[in-house]
Formats: sequence, structure tokens, C-alpha cells
Amino acid sequence: MFFEGSEKKVEVVMTSNSDSLRSFDKGFWEKLVSLSNAEILSSIHNEQCDAYILSESSLFVWHDRFLMLTCGNSTLVNSIIGFLDAVNLDDIQSVKYQRHKEYHAHLQVSRFTDDAEKLKTVLNGKAYRVGHLDSHHHYVFHYQKSNEIKVSAVTELLMYHLSGEVANYLRSPNQTKEAINRLLKLDAWFSDFMIGEHLFKPFGYSVNGIAGDKYFTFHITPQESGSYLSFETNINLAEQQPRLLIGLLDIFKPGCWDVIQTNANEIVSSFEDTLCIGQCDLQIGQGNNIIFKQYQQPWHQQLTAVEL
Amino acid sequence: MFFEGSEKKVEVVMTSNSDSLRSFDKGFWEKLVSLSNAEILSSIHNEQCDAYILSESSLFVWHDRFLMLTCGNSTLVNSIIGFLDAVNLDDIQSVKYQRHKEYHAHLQVSRFTDDAEKLKTVLNGKAYRVGHLDSHHHYVFHYQKSNEIKVSAVTELLMYHLSGEVANYLRSPNQTKEAINRLLKLDAWFSDFMIGEHLFKPFGYSVNGIAGDKYFTFHITPQESGSYLSFETNINLAEQQPRLLIGLLDIFKPGCWDVIQTNANEIVSSFEDTLCIGQCDLQIGQGNNIIFKQYQQPWHQQLTAVEL
Repeated sequence: MFFEGSEKKVEVVMTSNSDSLRSFDKGFWEKLVSLSNAEILSSIHNEQCDAYILSESSLFVWHDRFLMLTCGNSTLVNSIIGFLDAVNLDDIQSVKYQRHKEYHAHLQVSRFTDDAEKLKTVLNGKAYRVGHLDSHHHYVFHYQKSNEIKVSAVTELLMYHLSGEVANYLRSPNQTKEAINRLLKLDAWFSDFMIGEHLFKPFGYSVNGIAGDKYFTFHITPQESGSYLSFETNINLAEQQPRLLIGLLDIFKPGCWDVIQTNANEIVSSFEDTLCIGQCDLQIGQGNNIIFKQYQQPWHQQLTAVEL
Repeated sequence: MFFEGSEKKVEVVMTSNSDSLRSFDKGFWEKLVSLSNAEILSSIHNEQCDAYILSESSLFVWHDRFLMLTCGNSTLVNSIIGFLDAVNLDDIQSVKYQRHKEYHAHLQVSRFTDDAEKLKTVLNGKAYRVGHLDSHHHYVFHYQKSNEIKVSAVTELLMYHLSGEVANYLRSPNQTKEAINRLLKLDAWFSDFMIGEHLFKPFGYSVNGIAGDKYFTFHITPQESGSYLSFETNINLAEQQPRLLIGLLDIFKPGCWDVIQTNANEIVSSFEDTLCIGQCDLQIGQGNNIIFKQYQQPWHQQLTAVEL
């Protein structure tokens, strides 16, 4: 079975004088999501945000921006192009499209460079690669009309090679949403958030949370062949949850992980007793920056051999 | 331009009562090499070994074994199958086929698992993967008839992200074989070896050396997009050249490197002031073992962003 963790995402921000994105009906978003070969499974709503669980990850829609994450061999770039075709290009303030290095690149229907070429036919943006081709690396396409509104401040934690009791539970049969919700300690970390979640068969769990204009989302791909958990939020972690990332590492015990912070206060200067094997501060223009950091547990150096 | 470093290799060992492989004429080896989409460029010979420089790496033929290394999108597995078809399978003592993780896997014409399937239709061998899919990893197929003769004792040093003056020279125009030979200090390390070498256009250098039944070979792919140097030898480094690997690291200043030792005395317990980010001792049966180690320079953690 082929399943790739949520490795593609886009944030589109509209100019301040454009119509609210929430005025588009559900059919509009269903069609947009279908362009990625995904579908809407459920949704939650508050006064500022609509959050959808997708068959391949998540979609968040605010008045002036939307964020879409997809996984597997989805074609997120087609949704972006579909959106740009449906609106007035002058109303686009910024587009930030990111892709992570895939475990199974040969099974993907497109490469990042293909995606960037498509986007460049519509938007005069720039494309970057951060990191070495022979290790974790990330791609970013960024377009911004002006520096009137910045790209959202977001923290991402991408954990690989999950281990320990929780990882074993996530790979076990008869798991429940309620138990995973408890293992994630969602009540403790995000007590005031409205929650939407989905358990996939045979494995996999997605959860969206919203409170006002704040969001978080987790996507868990527990399969041992390439176990992966992605988390991201626009909460100011430095002020409100400085222990959250450490807490998540303690739960999922990943062999290695990446932290990606866009326009965010740096909250993790160091994880104790771990190896920082990569870091980069990428200036993407218009006052926006993205900090990438890659970490590894010392015990992750012990490689296992797999008979194929 | 697509050029992948020498990432595939095979050693085939014949049983002690089979005919000498050196009784096959040059046409036999030319045809075998052509099955990998490569050709013979030059050769050197001594009383125990014929060593060929190929358009994609190297071929060494001894009385009872041959070693072939190929790079780029060569199809080494087809040469192996061609050889197995040309001889009596009962005369095959062992086949060890290795592939390294590719930078540009999508441009390769086959994957290791495809290759292993082909080999398994002829030989009852085992296939392994060592290392994580999201970092350097290596594949091994191994077949051995009996433990009468072991797989050769070999040390491999694979260097990535070459830096410094020598790396810059290797990427410069108007380079010469003579200068690269000097930079490698071949005269100092391998004073009693007969040398065959080739400079590729616009870049790239291969050298074979033989002395009695001992060999070494270097293949340099200097392009900045994925610079790579592979070295291997069956010299007993622990006894005869204990400082060789350290010396090569000092010349080429790679950001990271792998050391792979098959049935060899361990000569590198640690490289000082570097990070060991992966290690594995793989027992492939019949008393053979392969030790994999992955190292990184502390400065390699500073990632650069590339605008695409």
C-alpha cells in the first residue's frame, strides 16, 4: 500500500479589498478539493474559520486566506491553479506553496519543479529548495504582490520514524479516535478549540482544531515503512505553548524531525541531547522568512537492515 | 545534465574448479559491458588482473572473480543476467550486488527491487535494505553457494558534497589528468600500482590501479548539484594504509560520507570531531558481513537554499 504523509501545502492570502473567501459555497470548495483528487469528509465552523477534514489531509478557509494540506499522490497544484482561474488575479496578495521530500518520489504524479513551472505561468513568483538532495529537503514557491500583508506566522513540526508505545498503538487494530485524541493530549494543549477528526482505515488519523482565527492540525501516517506525523499551527507557541513541541516529541518519540517556522518567533533554540543535523534561514522576500531545522535522536544512528 | 555517481556494483566469484574468467576474450567483456549501456574505454593488465575503465565506471577481471561498477542510468543487472546466462550456474560461488540511494531516482531506469526480482529468478539469493528511506541508504543482493570461498574483503568510501580547493579545481575548465592524479596523491598512497585513468568531458575522472591481486578505483563526479567521489579497494587498510581514508577526507572535504566494509577489519572506529549519524552491521550469511557507517561534518548542518 502506498501512502505518503501530508507533504504538500499551500496558503493563499487575498488583498484586503477582495471579497470574503467564506462567501464561496461548499460546492466551490468541493470542486477545488476534487482537483487534488481528494474529497471533503467533514467540517467544523466558527465565526472566523471553516475547517474541513479531507480524504487527503485538511482545508482551512478564513475571510482573507485559505490553507490546504494534501498527502499521498494528490495534485495540490491543480487546486491552486483552479483557484487562481476562479478569482481575479489582482485580488491575490500571496501564495506560498511547500512540498517536502517524498519517501516514494517515483510514485508521485508530479515533481516540485513541474508544479513550480505551472504556477509561474500564472504568478511571477520564486521557487527554492532548502536542504541537500540526499537528506530531508523542502521546496517553497512564493509569490507576493506587496508587503501590505505578510504570509501567516506558522510553526510546523514534522516527525519521522515514530517509536514507542504510542506509535505501536497507532499501528494496532481496533484503535479509536477517542484514544488517539487522549494520547495527543488535545484537551490539555488545546482546551478552548473546536475539534474535527477522522480515523482512516486501516490506519491514519487527522484532526483539525479552530478557536477564533487560530488553528492546529495533526496528520498521522503510522505505517512502519515510513511513519510520519505532521503538526502545524498559527498559535504563537513562544508565548502560549512553549513546551508543546517538546511534549509532542515525548509522546511520539520520532527518530528524527524537522521544525519549519514561517515568520514565527523562534521557540526552539535547541532540543536537549539531540543532534541538529541541518538548519537554514530562508528569506523569501517582502520581509518574510522561513527557518528550517532538522534534528535527530542519537539512537537514530543505529540503522536496521530490512530483508526485502 | 544528468549524471549519477557510481551507485551500482557487483562482485561475482566462481567456484574453485571452474575455468578462469581471464580465458574469456575481450569481445565477451565488451558485450557484457554493453548490456549495461556502457563501453570499454581503456585497460591495464598484470599477471593476475585485467582492469578496464568504462564509459560508466570500471570492470576488474581476475581468474576466479570479476567486479563491475557502473554509474548514471546504466543497467548493471542486465550484465549480471547476461553473465549468468553465459556460464554454468553451478560454477557460481557468490554474487554480491549493491546499489546506493540515488540523488535522481526518478531518472533511473530500474529500482533495486526490480533488479532483485530479476536476480531471484536465476539465483536463490537474499535482498536487503540498510538505512532509512529518507536518508542515505544502501541495497544489497547476496547469493552464495557455500562458505568454501568468502566474498572479497573490500573497503568503500563514498564522499558527498565535496568542498574546498580540490573540489573547485575538479569543477574548473582545462583540468588535466596529471593534476588530478597529483591531487589524489596516487604516487604516495599507491606507489607500486599500475594505473589506468580517464578524464571525462566536461567533468568527471576515473582511475583504476592494480598490483598483484590488489586493486583500487576512484570515480569522481564533481558537479555541484550532487558532487560525489567513490573509492574502493581490497587492500588491507588497517595493516597497510591506516591513514588513507582520513587523508582522502582531508583532500576532498566532503560534507558527509559513508564507509562500507565487507569482511574487512574495522579501520575507522571514529573520525574525530565528526557526527556518526548512522551505522549498521549486516550479516549476509555464510560468515560474510557488511558494516555501514554514515558520517557528517558539523558544518554540513548549515543548509543552503537554492533558487530553482
